[in-house]
Amino acid sequence: MKKSLLLVAHGSRRAASNDEVRTLTDRLRADAASDFADIACAFLELADPSIPDGLAELAERGAEHITVLPYFLAAGRHVAEDIPAEVETARAAHPEVAIEIAPYLGTSDALPRLLLEMLGDSAVAAG
Amino acid sequence: MKKSLLLVAHGSRRAASNDEVRTLTDRLRADAASDFADIACAFLELADPSIPDGLAELAERGAEHITVLPYFLAAGRHVAEDIPAEVETARAAHPEVAIEIAPYLGTSDALPRLLLEMLGDSAVAAG
Repeated sequence: MKKSLLLVAHGSRRAASNDEVRTLTDRLRADAASDFADIACAFLELADPSIPDGLAELAERGAEHITVLPYFLAAGRHVAEDIPAEVETARAAHPEVAIEIAPYLGTSDALPRLLLEMLGDSAVAAG
Repeated sequence: MKKSLLLVAHGSRRAASNDEVRTLTDRLRADAASDFADIACAFLELADPSIPDGLAELAERGAEHITVLPYFLAAGRHVAEDIPAEVETARAAHPEVAIEIAPYLGTSDALPRLLLEMLGDSAVAAG
């Protein structure tokens, strides 16, 4: 079974902000080659590709199972309603592909550790 | 020197979303007691306290140095302009306190690893 991953971010009017997501996706692709055959990103709004377009592209490249990973910190309306609605539309368009939504980033138990690591690193950098 | 930390999130109309940030702040407080004498959170908009109010409260509790940690994934307008402007106002109001802004969460090199760990955990949970 070909497993694929779609990282879904909010999207921004700032191109540099969307490029950060694309760079992260490239890094995920390098690190997760053993877990996912194909990795792409998509945006809820303000940037391309949209979530349906991102899912369609993975499906066209042969995805049989797609994990949608919401790159969001909090369970606002986007995570609770908008992303599930977009995914539901894509499921109807691609009934042959199993699409599941993973927990959003903000649910990670490892975030406090990561934040403190960052602060430690920047304190060192500041001398 | 009394070092304090202010975690700054966007803020949401959803109370549950803001409570996620408060819960994270409680976890940081438990984990980082050796690094920071005082830890609080504040919101850029839509929730209380505001960034100036959060900084004022830490200053009133005796902070001599405050690190502002933007809990944001991308360098949009909020990170690039709005948070620095709020912090600059607070610096003028509390000249006795050194206030620095740390890199925002999205700059962490550890994010790809954390995302892949999350996916591994949820795959295990799904059987």
